[in-house]
Amino acid sequence: MEYRRGKDQESDDISQKDVERLDLRSLSDTAATSNLSTAGGPKGKNTWKLKSIVTLALTLLTSSQAILIVWSKRAGKYEYSVTTANFSVEFLKCLLSLVALYRTWNSQGVTEDNRLTTSFDEVSVYPIPAIVYMVKNLLQYYIFAYVDAPAYQILKNLNIISTGVLYRIILKKKLSEIQWAAFVLLCAGCTTAQLNPSSDHVLQTPIQGWMMAIVMALLSGFAGVYTEAIIKKRPSRNINAQNFWLYIFGMIFNLVAICVQDFGAVINKGFFHGYSFITILMILNHALSGIAVSMVMKYADNIVKVYSTSVAMLLTAVVSVFLFNFHLSLAFFLGSTVVSVSVYLHSVGKPQQHNPPAQQK
Amino acid sequence: MEYRRGKDQESDDISQKDVERLDLRSLSDTAATSNLSTAGGPKGKNTWKLKSIVTLALTLLTSSQAILIVWSKRAGKYEYSVTTANFSVEFLKCLLSLVALYRTWNSQGVTEDNRLTTSFDEVSVYPIPAIVYMVKNLLQYYIFAYVDAPAYQILKNLNIISTGVLYRIILKKKLSEIQWAAFVLLCAGCTTAQLNPSSDHVLQTPIQGWMMAIVMALLSGFAGVYTEAIIKKRPSRNINAQNFWLYIFGMIFNLVAICVQDFGAVINKGFFHGYSFITILMILNHALSGIAVSMVMKYADNIVKVYSTSVAMLLTAVVSVFLFNFHLSLAFFLGSTVVSVSVYLHSVGKPQQHNPPAQQK
Repeated sequence: MEYRRGKDQESDDISQKDVERLDLRSLSDTAATSNLSTAGGPKGKNTWKLKSIVTLALTLLTSSQAILIVWSKRAGKYEYSVTTANFSVEFLKCLLSLVALYRTWNSQGVTEDNRLTTSFDEVSVYPIPAIVYMVKNLLQYYIFAYVDAPAYQILKNLNIISTGVLYRIILKKKLSEIQWAAFVLLCAGCTTAQLNPSSDHVLQTPIQGWMMAIVMALLSGFAGVYTEAIIKKRPSRNINAQNFWLYIFGMIFNLVAICVQDFGAVINKGFFHGYSFITILMILNHALSGIAVSMVMKYADNIVKVYSTSVAMLLTAVVSVFLFNFHLSLAFFLGSTVVSVSVYLHSVGKPQQHNPPAQQK
Repeated sequence: MEYRRGKDQESDDISQKDVERLDLRSLSDTAATSNLSTAGGPKGKNTWKLKSIVTLALTLLTSSQAILIVWSKRAGKYEYSVTTANFSVEFLKCLLSLVALYRTWNSQGVTEDNRLTTSFDEVSVYPIPAIVYMVKNLLQYYIFAYVDAPAYQILKNLNIISTGVLYRIILKKKLSEIQWAAFVLLCAGCTTAQLNPSSDHVLQTPIQGWMMAIVMALLSGFAGVYTEAIIKKRPSRNINAQNFWLYIFGMIFNLVAICVQDFGAVINKGFFHGYSFITILMILNHALSGIAVSMVMKYADNIVKVYSTSVAMLLTAVVSVFLFNFHLSLAFFLGSTVVSVSVYLHSVGKPQQHNPPAQQK
């Protein structure tokens, strides 16, 4: 069992100092942020730095996330309700957003861009990603009637393609032909790296399983791309304020999920029943990952997010060799090679090259 | 058991008419041939057509070659001496070259470029590929002390990389960065497509096995690239005359191999002992493939050859599904995807785009 990754957010992520620095930047880099791929000069350099920091943070957090999951599996079965853990993640993200906002208000005062109050127009779209994720998670219960777990792991890589396609359609951003080729390679490489003797089951997936997998990939891709659209719509808007509203709806929908799925268990055994040290670590990690995803949406894009989480998957496997004596397969090496080439092609294949110039004094 | 692919050659390949047409072109397209990548206009168009025909021929012949091998395996064990079959292939290629030359002499008369007699300077380099192949085949007997058969199949893909590297070093031809990336992908994709449950053995290959595999890949790559250098050295020279001399040395070295390995069997049971209908088909196929390789060397290059044989490998698997009820694995689909993207990247990544202009009348 693995809980869904939160959509977005931010707050005292890497450290609270970083967040304040990021806040200042988000104010000064408005123009550059909204036009990342062509930004140059000092502003472009800052944006590029910011983009690198949040991407790195997301990669590291996602890797440690998977390692925590392995660790918790080793430690025994999950005894807690997954829905309460999801709610705790949303709550923690909300709390961290508020803390970060509070610090911003103290240093810069309350402005139009960082105030918490909002218009109905701004906030009305915020529940949509949460609803889409809920539908996707609901489908997840039904797909296992047609697909087994290893095959599902493989099918999840369709997310990569759906994200690319929806990114193009919804955000109307162009990828070059070479970047498209790189994206197909990323999907093939990730799948190759995950190959194991039971992977071939996926070829026996019935048509219903395929359809559901494709619908789930589209929903997941849509939620990600739509969140980016929401966050990028007002580049000068403080990301913590945006996240606060996103996470409020995340909390509401998870509350509904608790009532539907785990109401009895929560009433009888308590909200935090079965929580262990690892559970708390996982909740913390998911909250920080969610914040990192949000940062990547604000300062980079969904494509960077997909690359980041894919590279994280490979990093996890390498780290697991040392931590858990994992055995790397030839398929893993081949997949990693393909993913590496894909990352390279994505960067050289930019429609317009973005080289932050060296600072001259 | 699979006999080594001949180096190069030509003659009445696709049909004798084709060869004559090719001959005429090889005379008229001298300049274009020696500068394929930048050729344009009618000459460029002819060259491009010629390149496509020989590439297609090589791909189809290589595919059917592998299918014949599967067929012959199904039909039972090989009873014949592989060395005599190799000699027969060289002999047949030599004979076909002579027939093609004879036809050329009849139609165009004997010229400086198509006469059989040659200078010591020209012919002195011709034995080198044959010697290199012999050394490589010799090593093949020893590598199995360190590497098992499935691992060897995987390691053979190192040929792709060694050919690219030696092509760059020896022929001093440039590949763009994207084409290099495509080449790495080709190697990874071919290997992925061949993955099976026992492929992971390759990771237990001892260092001696790796060293030998690398040396063999370098020798094989060197023989290919060196042959291209020999054939391209005098673009106006008739390819059949060049092949005649190449194959003469092929015959000589295979004669030595017969004496060393199968002398007893040949004396006792006869030269053609154990030959079946399939054996003859395979010899015919190898001879024609050898000729196609030679054509590709003359009118295209080693890179095209590598792509052609890689695509043939995939084609073979697909055809085998229908012929032998083969089961395609997920790894095969992933590998094929990567190879397809590689072919695409190789063509879009050309240092200087070569678009044969549509003929205007």
